[in-house]
Amino acid sequence: MATRSPLAPDAFPAIPPVPGVDLAAGAAGVRYAGRDDVMLALFAPGTAAAGVFTRSKTASAPVEWCRVALARGGGAARAMIVNAGNANAFTGRAGLAAVRRTAEAVVGLAGPGTGEVFVASTGVIGEPLDDSRIRAVLGDLRARAAPGGWEAVARAITTTDTFPKGATRTAVIDGATVTLAGIAKGSGMIAPDMATMLAFVFTDAAIPAPVLQPMLVRANARAFNCVTVDGDTSTSDTLMLFATGRGPAHGPVDRPGDRRLAGFRRALGDLLIDLACQVARDGEGAEKFVTIDVTGAASAPSARRIGLAIANSPLVKTAIAGADANWGRIVMAVGKAGERADRDRLMIRIGGVLVAENGVAHPDYREERLAGHMRGREIEIAVDVGVGRGRARVWTCDLTHGYIDINADYRS
Amino acid sequence: MATRSPLAPDAFPAIPPVPGVDLAAGAAGVRYAGRDDVMLALFAPGTAAAGVFTRSKTASAPVEWCRVALARGGGAARAMIVNAGNANAFTGRAGLAAVRRTAEAVVGLAGPGTGEVFVASTGVIGEPLDDSRIRAVLGDLRARAAPGGWEAVARAITTTDTFPKGATRTAVIDGATVTLAGIAKGSGMIAPDMATMLAFVFTDAAIPAPVLQPMLVRANARAFNCVTVDGDTSTSDTLMLFATGRGPAHGPVDRPGDRRLAGFRRALGDLLIDLACQVARDGEGAEKFVTIDVTGAASAPSARRIGLAIANSPLVKTAIAGADANWGRIVMAVGKAGERADRDRLMIRIGGVLVAENGVAHPDYREERLAGHMRGREIEIAVDVGVGRGRARVWTCDLTHGYIDINADYRS
Repeated sequence: MATRSPLAPDAFPAIPPVPGVDLAAGAAGVRYAGRDDVMLALFAPGTAAAGVFTRSKTASAPVEWCRVALARGGGAARAMIVNAGNANAFTGRAGLAAVRRTAEAVVGLAGPGTGEVFVASTGVIGEPLDDSRIRAVLGDLRARAAPGGWEAVARAITTTDTFPKGATRTAVIDGATVTLAGIAKGSGMIAPDMATMLAFVFTDAAIPAPVLQPMLVRANARAFNCVTVDGDTSTSDTLMLFATGRGPAHGPVDRPGDRRLAGFRRALGDLLIDLACQVARDGEGAEKFVTIDVTGAASAPSARRIGLAIANSPLVKTAIAGADANWGRIVMAVGKAGERADRDRLMIRIGGVLVAENGVAHPDYREERLAGHMRGREIEIAVDVGVGRGRARVWTCDLTHGYIDINADYRS
Repeated sequence: MATRSPLAPDAFPAIPPVPGVDLAAGAAGVRYAGRDDVMLALFAPGTAAAGVFTRSKTASAPVEWCRVALARGGGAARAMIVNAGNANAFTGRAGLAAVRRTAEAVVGLAGPGTGEVFVASTGVIGEPLDDSRIRAVLGDLRARAAPGGWEAVARAITTTDTFPKGATRTAVIDGATVTLAGIAKGSGMIAPDMATMLAFVFTDAAIPAPVLQPMLVRANARAFNCVTVDGDTSTSDTLMLFATGRGPAHGPVDRPGDRRLAGFRRALGDLLIDLACQVARDGEGAEKFVTIDVTGAASAPSARRIGLAIANSPLVKTAIAGADANWGRIVMAVGKAGERADRDRLMIRIGGVLVAENGVAHPDYREERLAGHMRGREIEIAVDVGVGRGRARVWTCDLTHGYIDINADYRS
């Protein structure tokens, strides 16, 4: 792994095992030497799955596979196999055949139908995936699969990431305390929708797939869909949530709006935001983590689009890299979003300092007051566009020489 | 001016005077010292104007002024005053008052109504414009205004540009040869719509405003609206076309579709593309000029959106900077455009070499074959998305360390 991002958390969090989930990481040598590059997750019978995938029109073969498997299998899941180093995207029929052979090989080990095996791949696009390398290590992975071991699998699925990403939460459902655990990878080609390459969340709660799916979509709208590194969208973005039902017993829940799920919904939303922010903190070349709050918009989606226009602006991002409180570029980005905004009521705060209001620079504002904030690692921007009550929070990082270094020479 | 872009033309072109247009450049000291920073253009009575402006929701005071002046005055124009260094954007009522005072001062010199004076400003956003500095030099500008002198005015309106931009064409209308001359400035914050900060075109043809306006909109759709440097949209983008009617006499033309205007339409389109490409060649930090042809799209606008998705992708642009023929990122960018595309019929050529077809890498493709092309200054990408007959050509530049250098430290 490259030098750890200066924005990374101190350490990988302590994440407890999730009953009903066995994990293993291994080295298949798909692309990288001397490191793990595959992960296998095996699920107890009865596990329910939900998924959100890239909106790319050139989605990868594994994404296509997962979409079909979810739809046909009604959300039943018994295994997930993930590799790093080759995205198996733009690989035509051969790519889909590679996914099928891999899934069938997992079936041979785990006993489920192929439709209950999910597959994800991340890495270079357009090169054939030699799936025999993955299949060759499946027996060993199966033999070693065990509860816990989150950091190892989080590490196995990374590509240009500089640190493994994990998060955990607990929630009470109907008096029973259930566990949520998640891992994610991604640091470039990160943008809505979806804003990560891969993220997997596991819980021992007993929640059927038709309830799980809308909860995941809703929670993700405020998490991975609100984070961006470079505005680019991967062909492989995959977020999946698996619920094994092997935790402490609780009464059946059969609709997403069930009040007993309120705590779970909050915990899920919180965990996804945690993972999404870790992805932004690992943005390629990132030196500063940026939180953007947009208020006063016509609606929440409108606020989100304005926030993302600011977050994706190369001029805003380079100004932040240069510790320059260049709020004129924020005005520009609000303008280019194409959303309703009242230029003459616009208010901007940076690091809590009122920079502009009613469409002009605030008379008390002095750039020196922001110098300390702009030199720091955590930048806060708040914009009120003065037309309504819509609000959103989005996250990004700055655009630095490091991004150019990494991406002008990724494959060589 | 900063070091001249390696993609710049050898020299400023030889542009003849346009009868009915007098020009002067001068130093008002709005922001820069030791260089010209204002230009004045005076037009013969009867000159017609057309304009296309930024779609930003936070448009600058001068843009607002020009829109109103065009609408109220029916396209009559007697003068244009432009300054560099301060965009007079996000400056509230004070900004509009500064525009009005400037226009009124020009009226005092030239005699027209204020509605026939157009104003444009480019530079920093959010700082009050001291228009007294501009007004102080108007008398001198008026006294020196004369035909020709294109390079001086092209130079006066630059900000981060590394070379002044000009172009000229001739066209035959009804047997009479008329002249077109244009200047432009812009190198960052360049994206549709519009894709330059400022561009002004002048002709001695006699074309009434209601005919001029649709011709300009149409020609621009394939010029400035097809060029991008960083996907950011200025608050100040302004393209204006002035027709003095003081050239060789030709019969009256009263509709844009008039056959006698065919040559003029071609010359105008060609001139605008020339200027737009000069802007991309001066993209901040640009080391390579990129031409992207999209074919097989559902429609021409769809092809343009796909082309711009490729052109705006930081991952595509950094790969080009690194001389890396990373066509997987082109696939990614096609996918993120959200337009109709058939993944399994996608065809990609780089530098004329067939890289991928029918959704997979071409068996004969070897990356080495592209090494020479990718190391060059002029990169050609062609993509067929396999669903229809829509086509478009867009232009951009690569994303380099130079862009970061310039934008992380623009104001200091």
